[in-house]
Amino acid sequence: MDMLVEHPRIPLGEKEFEAGSFADHTTPLIRNCWYVAALGGEVSREIISRRLLGVDIALYRTEAGAPVAVRNRCPHRSFPLAKGRLVGDTLICGYHGMQFDPSGRCVSMPSMPIVPTNAQVRSFDLVERAPLIWIWMGDPNKADESLVPDTPWLNDENWKSVSGQFFLNSDYVSMHENLLDQTHFPFLHPGVIGTPEYARSKLKIRREGEVVIIDRLLKNSPPPGVYAMPTGLTGKPVDRHSEARFQSPALHVAFAKIVNPTPPPGALTEYCFNITHIFTPENNESIHYWWFNSRNFDLQNKASDEFLHAASDKAYLEDVDALEWIMDVVRKDTEKQFDLNFAPDKPGLLMRRALYDRAAAEAGYEL
Amino acid sequence: MDMLVEHPRIPLGEKEFEAGSFADHTTPLIRNCWYVAALGGEVSREIISRRLLGVDIALYRTEAGAPVAVRNRCPHRSFPLAKGRLVGDTLICGYHGMQFDPSGRCVSMPSMPIVPTNAQVRSFDLVERAPLIWIWMGDPNKADESLVPDTPWLNDENWKSVSGQFFLNSDYVSMHENLLDQTHFPFLHPGVIGTPEYARSKLKIRREGEVVIIDRLLKNSPPPGVYAMPTGLTGKPVDRHSEARFQSPALHVAFAKIVNPTPPPGALTEYCFNITHIFTPENNESIHYWWFNSRNFDLQNKASDEFLHAASDKAYLEDVDALEWIMDVVRKDTEKQFDLNFAPDKPGLLMRRALYDRAAAEAGYEL
Amino acid sequence: MDMLVEHPRIPLGEKEFEAGSFADHTTPLIRNCWYVAALGGEVSREIISRRLLGVDIALYRTEAGAPVAVRNRCPHRSFPLAKGRLVGDTLICGYHGMQFDPSGRCVSMPSMPIVPTNAQVRSFDLVERAPLIWIWMGDPNKADESLVPDTPWLNDENWKSVSGQFFLNSDYVSMHENLLDQTHFPFLHPGVIGTPEYARSKLKIRREGEVVIIDRLLKNSPPPGVYAMPTGLTGKPVDRHSEARFQSPALHVAFAKIVNPTPPPGALTEYCFNITHIFTPENNESIHYWWFNSRNFDLQNKASDEFLHAASDKAYLEDVDALEWIMDVVRKDTEKQFDLNFAPDKPGLLMRRALYDRAAAEAGYEL
Repeated sequence: MDMLVEHPRIPLGEKEFEAGSFADHTTPLIRNCWYVAALGGEVSREIISRRLLGVDIALYRTEAGAPVAVRNRCPHRSFPLAKGRLVGDTLICGYHGMQFDPSGRCVSMPSMPIVPTNAQVRSFDLVERAPLIWIWMGDPNKADESLVPDTPWLNDENWKSVSGQFFLNSDYVSMHENLLDQTHFPFLHPGVIGTPEYARSKLKIRREGEVVIIDRLLKNSPPPGVYAMPTGLTGKPVDRHSEARFQSPALHVAFAKIVNPTPPPGALTEYCFNITHIFTPENNESIHYWWFNSRNFDLQNKASDEFLHAASDKAYLEDVDALEWIMDVVRKDTEKQFDLNFAPDKPGLLMRRALYDRAAAEAGYEL
Repeated sequence: MDMLVEHPRIPLGEKEFEAGSFADHTTPLIRNCWYVAALGGEVSREIISRRLLGVDIALYRTEAGAPVAVRNRCPHRSFPLAKGRLVGDTLICGYHGMQFDPSGRCVSMPSMPIVPTNAQVRSFDLVERAPLIWIWMGDPNKADESLVPDTPWLNDENWKSVSGQFFLNSDYVSMHENLLDQTHFPFLHPGVIGTPEYARSKLKIRREGEVVIIDRLLKNSPPPGVYAMPTGLTGKPVDRHSEARFQSPALHVAFAKIVNPTPPPGALTEYCFNITHIFTPENNESIHYWWFNSRNFDLQNKASDEFLHAASDKAYLEDVDALEWIMDVVRKDTEKQFDLNFAPDKPGLLMRRALYDRAAAEAGYEL
Repeated sequence: MDMLVEHPRIPLGEKEFEAGSFADHTTPLIRNCWYVAALGGEVSREIISRRLLGVDIALYRTEAGAPVAVRNRCPHRSFPLAKGRLVGDTLICGYHGMQFDPSGRCVSMPSMPIVPTNAQVRSFDLVERAPLIWIWMGDPNKADESLVPDTPWLNDENWKSVSGQFFLNSDYVSMHENLLDQTHFPFLHPGVIGTPEYARSKLKIRREGEVVIIDRLLKNSPPPGVYAMPTGLTGKPVDRHSEARFQSPALHVAFAKIVNPTPPPGALTEYCFNITHIFTPENNESIHYWWFNSRNFDLQNKASDEFLHAASDKAYLEDVDALEWIMDVVRKDTEKQFDLNFAPDKPGLLMRRALYDRAAAEAGYEL
């Protein structure tokens, strides 16, 4: 029998943090973190708006193509700036014509003889790393571009990605926990990504700072469906190396390597799949979710593209459905529950402890 | 002029109870009581879920046919168990495959080498009395099968029932009050179940413990429409005996007996109708409602079945509409109101006093 | 550079008022004021209901044609009286048949042997000034018919009006502020009612008690589109006199006079437009809004009717859309904002100060 730890669900907005607790859907969101605001292709000369970390953001590109994010709320009368228009690089409010440059500084207020230069809308630091646009919504003094997570395989001609996105009514903590937990594969995703052998294989859990890493090696076992088709190794015993990384509140990456110990002449020995999961909370109970399935072989194979897209979309939708059902129960149930924890929950609990401690630190608590 | 008692509406969740108050839609629900969870025919080998007293319940039958109710929330990660599946009598969670026997005890957690036998989901005592399945959601130590209300006419070959059900946005207190009050018949149900003579006839109010009973005898008067057609006594002076019983928070029963003082040769003298109203609060402002209209004569008469079903459905829908309109006003109105009470409200107030005192006692108050 | 005043948004229901603050969507509604309950044509022998200042009202006419307003909630069991029926001038509740005369006094309770004459539903003072029915929902002792705002042009054969109505999810404070602010014309209503010259013309701000008045004179400039077509003075230099009046929480009136300095023989010199904006809050975040565009010339011109209706409807819908977008942002945004104020906001701020002080006074505060 293993640990059966109880953890209380702390009401949202509650002031107190307690040492040794785990983040859940009620924990204040982490703000000092780079999150994905949008895919590069979503942002253009047409202003769009999106709610991130509870704040409405207006997004557009300058004439030179640089992405810009400002709060979607004019500092004068709260008009949503995304309903305004662009003239050159200047964003013009649709209510009184107040004008803002890309830094958010007011450069004209038509009804005023002198420009109120101390007026401004908050702008947010953005870093574009194709195909992603990252945003910093925390303390501006702590925005450090070197902390933007690296995902080079998403923009590399030696890799091919299929992708998709969801907007879901769940919390990003549960989504991260789901991804650090592979014991649900045979039950929630039977056939596709789980095999009984894999579920039983041993895992190593490491931490590098706040990054939680699970390593797993399953030798001499047929690959699961999702890897079998693209590699053409259905039913063949292979070695499967996998690494799952909780990289930040915004990012989980899984690296899978299928090694064929006895490749026919001219065939590959190694096949790599990088799976990128990106989460940006809209608020504590809803998430923008983007996923990418990238491979480093057989790049032109459209059938593999289609297969991987369909299989990924199906599996992630199963996660999305499950987590929305859970959130619905948690939200409506009037009888509280303290969820039980088991040994395989350890990676998730490490992650949740890290999130909790970061939230506490951002709220000024030393735990 | 009669009593004009004011009663304050106590905010939901308020801790204080005050002696001499009446239950209303804000009063905590009574938990130590048998409620109907479902009709027997609703529960099968397909797991269903339903929210009762604010708690999500999963319902299914064992292979032997016994009904089972457990909390619809896995104790591990709150996955709704009704989204899982049955293997034999074992309920398997759809997220991590955690397995529960009908008592709610965990009998397997696939990701764990040893079964965490101290893990369990709460199960609820059920008693099946066809066509009803009763559930006890209060203190398990107080679950006493002898307290399950008796409704033998619902499962007796000498009685024939028609029935229906509603889900409504109102409170069960107002529904019970509605049923203990027949002065609304001529206004809300003109023609069908109310007659002016009946509205004026005297009533006797009795209490047997917490059971509130209204007896009424109207002699020598034509029966109302709903009883006239099935008995064939339209326009004929009859004696009408009626007894309305607030039996418990879950059950109201009305017994009506039409006596023909001068039956033709070979005809019946007495005609009995038992009307069963069953309420299970989903929460303080919504109710599962089942009704049965049972008669002990002319059992094979399909025309009577159809007439009684249509007339009952129409009348109860009038009640449902009225109570939903009231709840809507009460909920949205920003100006509080202390409802007036009149002499005919006495049975309802006795019931509401009893409910209030039970709620107070369950909250640990001695009034 | 002008004033940049910050004003905090005070949470709704907060008890404290602070001197020097401005009303916004969280400020308690003003109750001691005449508001429009309905257009005369909306009220008939069919009872209707409408929520005003957070209270449900039932409206009907007596047989003699007098409008009646009572609370839409029976004092006995909260049944909505508008679901009842009229017999003569008596309103009969649809639940237990309780009867009320137009003053709200109970004149019969069928289940009671003696009429409970001390029972009553609150009735509200109404004053009909065609086409409007005004209601007083504040302290009945302060209802003073002489305070009903005068809008004689709405019922005068020398004037012709076109009109429309909206129900919108915004607050009446922002709507009044919108109307006292003409600097938004060129941006929110380009072309139709704003001209660049007008936006730059000087304005005089006066107060007469709580009435805030803006006077403006623009000489020798072509009229904006909305006035150009009906007067036939497109492109012709005219003098434009305008007066905008925040008359009360319920009413804003704008008087516009176009003077043609060089009329051709037989043509008019002066053209008057009176624009009437009527607001009745449903609650703090939604409003019933009626508007009228009245002119004193060319009364039979259907083309002018159609043009003025279309142009007004378009412009006011632009306001409605803008204010709903703002309310949506303000309501959902989790990061508070203290709106900036500029010199042209002065009339709006005077109005908001007056509303705030009235709300404080009604709550018993002396600021």
